[in-house]
This record gives sequence, structure tokens and C-alpha cells, in this order.
Amino acid sequence: MILIKIGGGKKINLNYICEDIKTLTDQGEKVVLVHGASVIRDEIAKKIGAPTKTITSPTGISSVYTDKTAIDVFLMAYPGLVNKTIVARLQSYGVNAVGLSGIDGQLWKGKRKVNVYSKEGVKTKLITDNMTGKVTQININLINLLLNNKYLPVVCPPALSEENEIINTDNDWAVAVMSGALKIEKMVVLFEAPGLLKKFGDESSLIKIVNKDKLDTYLTYTQGRMKKKLLGAKEAFTQGLKKLYWSDGRIKNPIINALKGTGTIIS
Amino acid sequence: MILIKIGGGKKINLNYICEDIKTLTDQGEKVVLVHGASVIRDEIAKKIGAPTKTITSPTGISSVYTDKTAIDVFLMAYPGLVNKTIVARLQSYGVNAVGLSGIDGQLWKGKRKVNVYSKEGVKTKLITDNMTGKVTQININLINLLLNNKYLPVVCPPALSEENEIINTDNDWAVAVMSGALKIEKMVVLFEAPGLLKKFGDESSLIKIVNKDKLDTYLTYTQGRMKKKLLGAKEAFTQGLKKLYWSDGRIKNPIINALKGTGTIIS
Repeated sequence: MILIKIGGGKKINLNYICEDIKTLTDQGEKVVLVHGASVIRDEIAKKIGAPTKTITSPTGISSVYTDKTAIDVFLMAYPGLVNKTIVARLQSYGVNAVGLSGIDGQLWKGKRKVNVYSKEGVKTKLITDNMTGKVTQININLINLLLNNKYLPVVCPPALSEENEIINTDNDWAVAVMSGALKIEKMVVLFEAPGLLKKFGDESSLIKIVNKDKLDTYLTYTQGRMKKKLLGAKEAFTQGLKKLYWSDGRIKNPIINALKGTGTIIS
Repeated sequence: MILIKIGGGKKINLNYICEDIKTLTDQGEKVVLVHGASVIRDEIAKKIGAPTKTITSPTGISSVYTDKTAIDVFLMAYPGLVNKTIVARLQSYGVNAVGLSGIDGQLWKGKRKVNVYSKEGVKTKLITDNMTGKVTQININLINLLLNNKYLPVVCPPALSEENEIINTDNDWAVAVMSGALKIEKMVVLFEAPGLLKKFGDESSLIKIVNKDKLDTYLTYTQGRMKKKLLGAKEAFTQGLKKLYWSDGRIKNPIINALKGTGTIIS
């Protein structure tokens, strides 16, 4: 079983990804696809006049502020526009995909973080309406039920809290927890870069091989989203992952090339 | 097995519906829920500056003009915001719901109507980018797979065309075809009225009993959406339905009351 995660960037080539998934499933491989939708989410948020807001924790980590309106936009973008576009595209390639959010069948459950602190200038503000949390539990029965009946699950956030509220969640962390629950040995993560870069934005600075035990040292090279991906990667290895492929989602045969080692191999 | 269809109106009381579904499933009843989202769809369309457009056929029947932008808005509203809101609400009532659009697992397949004629003043215009069609085929295996594993399917449009394009589709017709495919005997349709009304808008003019063979005569009482519901009802009986309950989605115990005959019973 291969777990594939694709980022929410606009340059990710969905057709190339679908082609490779068709090849893999024709070879009898079981595939689970997880996707992001942050760019489309931000676009919709802007269009409806409620642009995505971020908050910065007292320790300096920024994250999306997810109030009720932001959850609505999240639902429009992730399980709505983006998930169904991917599912329909896979169908057009002959792959019988079924889209699921973390809410469906309690696929992704997590604990809501009720109190969040936000640094605003010199002041620190307590925010209590932030609907976010970290995924801790996966309904693998639903995933296996679909896979065993020849359906390919296409999964995205949001998740469900222990109190059955809809919560935004770190996708890379959720994927790591899912890889553990499904006992995944190989995971492919595709984004808008050739792999892990030594120098931010410099695509010629690709790091080909990374030792999973030294992931911490790479945290210094990375910023923003990439830092979260590294933390997700660390968690995935803690949960039993053997090989992680970070590669380019813009090129032809993105998955097959990733597995051949075109990008970064972490193991 | 009971098929329940709820309209997209804002006065439909989702909590009351979830309460009844919980009662029914606790009694061992298998339930499939289908929902609309037209009001939310129109709201989102307006907010993003692409309001829902309608076209009128040369024979005078109006329908939504579904171009690429309208499909995007459709995906945001139906399988996105509304479907996931319903799924999460059912989860909070202890019902393990899974949301599906007609795209997922090829649940609803239909033939796209490539050429559509629109009357504009005295002229008739040919429209070729209208993404609509009528559902003809249902993947009952996916529905049964979920039901047999204690998941409650929450279904909504759009559908998938024979060429795997995303198409808008008449929900009432699709529900009728689904009732036939699933060999449903009892169907409950809930909307923002006490049932079929003799006089449009006059809630005291409820018709309690309707003979399924005389549905055509009622077409004269009805307008707009209600006319489509009647045509859907006719088709459902053609496909083998035994009893159809049209009732109020705003009241306490809407489903249990419908089955008791509070609204209109068609048989």
C-alpha cells in the first residue's frame, strides 16, 4: 500500500498524478491519496470577503486562525471544490475514486485546542473560538473497506473533534498518523519543488538522501510549510514508516519518478 | 430501507432530522439521506460575484445555467459546505455518516445534454457549455457496502456524465432513479411546507392523500420546484416505489410524523 500526499499548490499537475496512479493501481498496488487545497481556500476566502487570517503563537509559530467563517470556506475548498475535482479527474483516468474528508465516518479524529494564544504586537491575546486540533485517531476500517472493494480513497481535512466539531488540522501531521495506523511502509509527498532544498527557493540545491534520524538538523534549512512537513515526516517514522519520498508534483510521472529517487529519499 | 430526501431551504431543521434518523437507525432501520443545497449555492454564487443564472427553454421550463464557474460553486456548496455540515451534525447525534456526491465511486451517472436551447426575448440561442444531465445509473454496490458496514450514506449532486465530466442534475429525478435501483418501498421528502398544497403558499390547503395514478392532475396546482418534485414522484412510482411521504422539514420529529401521515401520502 502506498500513501500519496499532494500539496495544494496550483502548479501541481493533476493529470500526471492521475496517470501514475492509474499505472500503479493497474499493477495491483493499493493507493490512498491525501490532498491539500490551501491556495484555492485562500482564493475563495478572498472572493467572499473573508480573507484567511493567521495568528502567531508566543513562541513565533504562525498558523491559520479558523473561526466559523473560515471553517465554512474550508469546507467549500477542501472536501468541496478540490476533492471532487480530483475524484472526477481520477474517474476520467479509469480509477474508481471516492472522496472522503476527515469528518466522514470519523476518518480523522483529534482533540480540539480550546485555548490558543496569539501575539499581537507586545500583547498576548487568548483566542477561544479557534477551531483547530491535532489528529490522533484514524478509522482504518473505512479506508480498508473501500480499498478491498476496489475504490481508491481520496482524503482531505477537516477532521472531527472528540466533541464532533469540525476542526482544521495540520495535514502533514494527520498523514503521518494515518501512515502509522495503516502500517504504510512507503509514502510519497509531492509539492512544487524537486524535493528538500538546502537553500530555500534554489531548486539546484536538492538534497537527494536524508537519514531519518537526522531530520532535526534539516529543520534549520527550512521555513514555514516545509518545517511542518519535516515535523510530519519525523512523526511518520516514529509511527513505523520505512521510506519517505519527497518529490516534484509538476513533472511528468511524478510518483514513478519519486519512487525511482528523482527527489529526496528519507529513510 | 428508507430513502429520505431533504430540500435545500434554510428553514429545514437539521437537528430535528438528525434526531429522527438516530431513532430510526437505533431501531435497525437502514437509512439513505439525500440533500439539496440550492439556497446556500445561490448565496455563495452571489458572494463570489457570479450569481446563479437561469435559462428558459423554448417550451417555457426554466433551469439553472451551469457553466464552469457554476460547477465550481456547486462543488463548494453541495459536497462541500452543506454535505459536510450534515455529516458532522449526524456524527454529533451518534450516527456514523459518510458523505458522497454523485461523482464519488460513480454513484450517480447520467447523460450530459450537450445542446440546450435558451429563449431570450424573441430569439432562441443554442448553448453548448451547459454542464447538466439526467441521472440514469446508480452504483448501488457502494451504497450497500456502506449500509452493510453500519455507515449512513449522505448523498448529494453533482453527477458524473458518461464521459466522466461533472454535471448538474435534477435532484428529484436522481432520487427517483435511486429509489428504483435500491428497491426502496418507502420514501420521505421533507421541505419548507406541510406537504402538497392545493393553493401555492397557503399552508392550510394541504392535500392529505394522493393517488399515485393521478399525479398528473396535480401538476396543475404546482409551480417551479414543486412541479419537478411531482415529475420525480411519478418516476419513482414507475420504478417501483410503494409509498411516498411529502412532509414538513421544519417541525419536530419530521420523519416520524411524515411516516404517521402528518403531511401528504402518495400511494
